[in-house]
Amino acid sequence: MSRSWCSLFNQIAPCGTFTSLLKSYLCPIVKINTNPDTIVALATPSGTGAIGVIRLSGPQAISIISRVFKGKDLSKQASHTIHFGTIRDGEIILDEVLVSLFIAPKSYTKENVVEISTHGSAYIIENIIRLLIREGARAAQPGEFTLRAFLNGGLDLSQAEAVADLIASNSSASHQVAMQQMRGGFSNELKALREQLINFASLIELELDFAEEDVEFANRDQLKQLILQITRVIARLIQSFEQGNVMKNGVPVVIAGKPNVGKSTLLNALLNEERAIVSDIAGTTRDTIEDEMTIGGVLFRFIDTAGIRETEDVVEAQGVERTHEKMRQAKLIIYLVDPLQSIGTIQEQIASLGQLNIPQLTVVNKSDLLSPQQQHEFAALNPSFISARNKEGIEELKDEILRRINLHQISNDDVLVTNIRHVEALQHTLEALERVLYGIDNPVTSDFLSMDIKQALYYLGEITGTVTTDDLLENIFSKFCIGK
Amino acid sequence: MSRSWCSLFNQIAPCGTFTSLLKSYLCPIVKINTNPDTIVALATPSGTGAIGVIRLSGPQAISIISRVFKGKDLSKQASHTIHFGTIRDGEIILDEVLVSLFIAPKSYTKENVVEISTHGSAYIIENIIRLLIREGARAAQPGEFTLRAFLNGGLDLSQAEAVADLIASNSSASHQVAMQQMRGGFSNELKALREQLINFASLIELELDFAEEDVEFANRDQLKQLILQITRVIARLIQSFEQGNVMKNGVPVVIAGKPNVGKSTLLNALLNEERAIVSDIAGTTRDTIEDEMTIGGVLFRFIDTAGIRETEDVVEAQGVERTHEKMRQAKLIIYLVDPLQSIGTIQEQIASLGQLNIPQLTVVNKSDLLSPQQQHEFAALNPSFISARNKEGIEELKDEILRRINLHQISNDDVLVTNIRHVEALQHTLEALERVLYGIDNPVTSDFLSMDIKQALYYLGEITGTVTTDDLLENIFSKFCIGK
Repeated sequence: MSRSWCSLFNQIAPCGTFTSLLKSYLCPIVKINTNPDTIVALATPSGTGAIGVIRLSGPQAISIISRVFKGKDLSKQASHTIHFGTIRDGEIILDEVLVSLFIAPKSYTKENVVEISTHGSAYIIENIIRLLIREGARAAQPGEFTLRAFLNGGLDLSQAEAVADLIASNSSASHQVAMQQMRGGFSNELKALREQLINFASLIELELDFAEEDVEFANRDQLKQLILQITRVIARLIQSFEQGNVMKNGVPVVIAGKPNVGKSTLLNALLNEERAIVSDIAGTTRDTIEDEMTIGGVLFRFIDTAGIRETEDVVEAQGVERTHEKMRQAKLIIYLVDPLQSIGTIQEQIASLGQLNIPQLTVVNKSDLLSPQQQHEFAALNPSFISARNKEGIEELKDEILRRINLHQISNDDVLVTNIRHVEALQHTLEALERVLYGIDNPVTSDFLSMDIKQALYYLGEITGTVTTDDLLENIFSKFCIGK
Repeated sequence: MSRSWCSLFNQIAPCGTFTSLLKSYLCPIVKINTNPDTIVALATPSGTGAIGVIRLSGPQAISIISRVFKGKDLSKQASHTIHFGTIRDGEIILDEVLVSLFIAPKSYTKENVVEISTHGSAYIIENIIRLLIREGARAAQPGEFTLRAFLNGGLDLSQAEAVADLIASNSSASHQVAMQQMRGGFSNELKALREQLINFASLIELELDFAEEDVEFANRDQLKQLILQITRVIARLIQSFEQGNVMKNGVPVVIAGKPNVGKSTLLNALLNEERAIVSDIAGTTRDTIEDEMTIGGVLFRFIDTAGIRETEDVVEAQGVERTHEKMRQAKLIIYLVDPLQSIGTIQEQIASLGQLNIPQLTVVNKSDLLSPQQQHEFAALNPSFISARNKEGIEELKDEILRRINLHQISNDDVLVTNIRHVEALQHTLEALERVLYGIDNPVTSDFLSMDIKQALYYLGEITGTVTTDDLLENIFSKFCIGK
């Protein structure tokens, strides 16, 4: 099941010039599933709906469905066609269904795939799945359809991971980043770099074969230029993680302020308007500490410090380590004040918060209660004025939050890294490349240079899945839902 | 939107011999939607899954999807084919999807239908539905797809109702009854009777046109034979409701007995074994009073009288009216006793329960504690022996319960009435037919006979939807889920 160094070796040096020791060290036993079984799962959410879709994938998919389907002879139908009939368990009609056929390799998994559209009854779905299992299918593991798509070359690994991100996406930004990755933007950028590097690696391998003749097939200046170019791209990708991550997981914003200035009312005012729009979206969680919402298509995680600890002095008080921790991770601190506070105390707090070096935004709540004198005083803080209770100034505050966060709008073409696994692989690649650069400028032998280039290739390959281990695959696909 | 007497009139007397007064009384304004709009809804359950399916139906379905789909030209594709591509909102790719085409009339609704299989993200699904609505589709009402299937002649009304029953089915028996009805078994039986009756009705109408000549086109003896035959069939259908209803809603079984004999332990023992099998089936509800489970494919509702009122004397004690009420509705009373009770008291109770005229089954719990003397005494009651705590005798008890309930096994061909609306219509039909029989045997004029036959036809037509009102349709389809 695992791809490994071996395929890489064969690719860059099919004539087998490597020492067998090195090869055996780098090549784990390759378990390629040459005779895969046929898997089955419900692909739609459980629960009551008009229809449910059961998915079969594998070499026996069509023969299994044919044994229980009464209608046309499915083995004689074209790919991408739909057929009406009944599913029968002996004499009992389990359901009238539509069967969709996808003939290998024209399917998601590149295997024969059958999708059965049933009435959305849990009883029917369960009984059809049981029947298909009796007829020779096996219940699919989480993500096993996508795993097969990956193993059969339909997707690379970063694209497969993006499928899960896409399903979990709950904002315009997280959706776009996942879509971009699933469609291969990220992989394409890496693939081009990797191919150039492989060319150099094979030239240097050649030098190893002619080591006694002291020749240089690989031009060191060109190699250095390439490595520098790759280094720049990778550094940019690593840097993009900060933005990619907040787009995927939400921009953390801390709401700070003394008790009763209206932090929860503000949160509700922000949420209520948004909820009306997102109310159909499932999975919007709400607890006492954090609340998620999208503003302008960007997911925000608002952290109400009241949920952590109420304290008069938000920064200096003892026992607020957790508040501090949250604040340090924030991309923005909203400091909420009200007209009952003296301008002097507020200024002290702002200065104190400033030490955290996190962008901050002062917001004056209950601004309808400000006296003309106060209005003048507070204006000097350059704050946003709102009345959370009357829902005044909320829209303007949202615009201001978006401006302060200053995420550049991503387009369909922007490549952002959102996956911690990818960042780590990129960092390892960068380290290996730095050793290559050192090796070029210093008197090291070709075999060391070769080793470092191969390490860089290895880590790059980990991202797209050219190089994988069973553990890695297990770890990635176990997080998928069953049926995907 | 409504079909009415009018279609019936046209069918049996297209030459328009009826008085316009009668016709105007019986014919409500017919609202046929000659230019229907295109509706859209999520057809799969909401929640996270591998895929979601969005369904469009109506004359604009293909032009609407074509405006947002990038891939093949969908307007040029055959029915029952599947096409890969992307859904785009301007420049933004909302998803990579599979689009299934069903060209009218080869679809569920008999209109053009498009099914879009998307990634199972609530965000994506919501945004695609919004986009389709912006492009001219309308959000579907509950059951509107099936309503259109009915209005366009794809299903009759009792079949449409069976679709909802099928989705709600949660046992082998309720599933089979719904499947049988959806596949038209019930409708077919009624249709044949109705056609014969229509023949006589038209002959009698002819007599009305020649009233002054005192002729009899309709042979009274043959008519009487037909009415008697129909009466027998309808009486049988009405009778089948008792069984059909319990198969759909569960067989009510009351568990009675004095406190601490182990009623709840018995319920749990019965449930636990069943739960292991049905655990995947959603919607198995459990409260303190009633528990549902399937035994041998039949749904049972076990009513634990402990949940109603604990009383030493299950029948005679005051304040147990509710227990009595439940017992009277039961199909079986399980009277649970234990070795601590004297055989005399038990015999009194059994005699007392016997007055309810409900089948009863005496069950001795804690039978491992019986002395040899007691074993002999209790055996005289012909009971089932169990130990609920040790789960002994439970399987045998289930078999005994099934035997006592004595539901005959239904086959794919058995016609059972499960719908209270249908029973009422059948009862009204029967009453009208009895008046016809009286009219044949007594000197009433043809126009009275004709009126009664038409009433019978009207009520029969209500079942299959040949005759409907908007209220009736509203009432039926509002109970469907959206997307069906």
